[in-house]
Amino acid sequence: MAALAFGHKNPDTDTVVSALAAADLKTKTGTETKAVTLGECTPETVFVLEKFGIAKPEIVSSVAGQDVVIVDTTDLAQLPDDIAEANVLAIFDHHKLGDLTTSSPLEMWVGPVGCSATMIYKAYKASNVEIPKDLAGAMLCALLSDTVMFKSVTCTEEDKAVAADLAKIAGVSDMMALGMEMFKVKSAVDGATASELVFRDYKDFDMSGKKVGIGQLEVVDLSMLDARKAELAEEIKKVKADGRHSVFLLLTDIMKEGSQMLIVSDDASVVEKAFGVAGDAEVWLEGVMSRKKQVVPNFEKAFSAL
Amino acid sequence: MAALAFGHKNPDTDTVVSALAAADLKTKTGTETKAVTLGECTPETVFVLEKFGIAKPEIVSSVAGQDVVIVDTTDLAQLPDDIAEANVLAIFDHHKLGDLTTSSPLEMWVGPVGCSATMIYKAYKASNVEIPKDLAGAMLCALLSDTVMFKSVTCTEEDKAVAADLAKIAGVSDMMALGMEMFKVKSAVDGATASELVFRDYKDFDMSGKKVGIGQLEVVDLSMLDARKAELAEEIKKVKADGRHSVFLLLTDIMKEGSQMLIVSDDASVVEKAFGVAGDAEVWLEGVMSRKKQVVPNFEKAFSAL
Repeated sequence: MAALAFGHKNPDTDTVVSALAAADLKTKTGTETKAVTLGECTPETVFVLEKFGIAKPEIVSSVAGQDVVIVDTTDLAQLPDDIAEANVLAIFDHHKLGDLTTSSPLEMWVGPVGCSATMIYKAYKASNVEIPKDLAGAMLCALLSDTVMFKSVTCTEEDKAVAADLAKIAGVSDMMALGMEMFKVKSAVDGATASELVFRDYKDFDMSGKKVGIGQLEVVDLSMLDARKAELAEEIKKVKADGRHSVFLLLTDIMKEGSQMLIVSDDASVVEKAFGVAGDAEVWLEGVMSRKKQVVPNFEKAFSAL
Repeated sequence: MAALAFGHKNPDTDTVVSALAAADLKTKTGTETKAVTLGECTPETVFVLEKFGIAKPEIVSSVAGQDVVIVDTTDLAQLPDDIAEANVLAIFDHHKLGDLTTSSPLEMWVGPVGCSATMIYKAYKASNVEIPKDLAGAMLCALLSDTVMFKSVTCTEEDKAVAADLAKIAGVSDMMALGMEMFKVKSAVDGATASELVFRDYKDFDMSGKKVGIGQLEVVDLSMLDARKAELAEEIKKVKADGRHSVFLLLTDIMKEGSQMLIVSDDASVVEKAFGVAGDAEVWLEGVMSRKKQVVPNFEKAFSAL
């Protein structure tokens, strides 16, 4: 039985593409591995896969008894419920270290870089395995997506060098044009329900014993969301009602380089503790574009001090 | 303030040497880092440091508020009590993934290899930093120690290739002679108290909510311990009395390639569940030399089924 490679729930482009690349690399280095996802691909990911002619991975929910390769997370809340019954062979990630544990030694490629695809690129190089042209294109998109076209504070010089090499392998001559095309697809809000928008890139966290949901919507211009904001605020109230202490929705303007954050919380003072800006229903967070590096660490500190 | 590099409590040679090497590498790549330990060095480690003219690191117990580099473990029980208040920059390890979590992204070099020093060797190579001659000799000893001179099941082809290169850098012409010299120091039991022998390489684990201690003594010939066995059995009873469900002491014969395991447990049936060999006070485990790869995973499964 082939090993399974997958990333987090509510998969984004980096998670899906990194699972595909990790499966390719592991298979070529002797461990037959198949990429799967834990949920539906976003429109952005569908665009990327179609652009480079890659089939959409199938969706699984149970992994008990399987060998697995995990990408883009080490948080139990973002993995299948029966992950403890799987045998973790390898992890490729660029986030803080979460609460996943394993019962055997494993391989981990983890670094403070802009996306998981960058870590897999490094593993390809270290294993002297060539990156296929189609995957290189998709990995480039994963990198452009996760780093918001190099603008995120999580983006490193290494990410930029990796992007340049991936573009070369993929035969992409204008990567910024590719990025804008992709972000236009990602930003599209017409035709999507409020629930689809909230869950487009949504994660649950355990913060000092409290369940906290944080979603993020990246748009090329915040005004695109003006007509939907009331609806989104209603929607996160519903999400909160399902046993959560707080739900935050970041509406990130990738051109203005900041985020409007919609708030629903049992104790909204946590927002001021975390960011020094008070607000009951929403606040503007200047320069805040990265959930992982800017929002989650601040909230974790603030929740631990509640 | 310099960052601190350290490994687990009850430091062995791989932990101490890997902390020294990680500190050297981090310092040379731009993050001033100082190696420390969480406890006294063993006679084996003192022999290695003296052999290659390296100063013994100082001992620390608190790391709150510091930047830290962790080697050779990700288990909270094996780290300083205030590790949650430190900022983890990097981890170099070759064990299963433990329960340490971080609040920021970090660098992790983790692989299923014979020792942490092998992972740091790989990081040196990837960073194009030269390994100093003295550290190369000490890293070779860490590798020979942790892989029991390449005999442990944890030892990989990669470890052997790394050992050959480290020997070249260090100018060691006969690495097996160096290994035997080191193991003779490690095996010495004369003049050591029973407590010193039990804690020479001892670790506590949380297994399905039960506190379990596992020590290991490696000797070149088990008969060296005949005169001390009754005393060691008494000693682990004392250790167990301090709130533990079980304490196991592996007396590993590196030439016969197996371990005599001394047992004191609230439920010794766990030994048969784990290894298929029954015994109340002791059992011989043929071919069992690795606590990490053979003993801990078997006990974790057995304890979860108690």
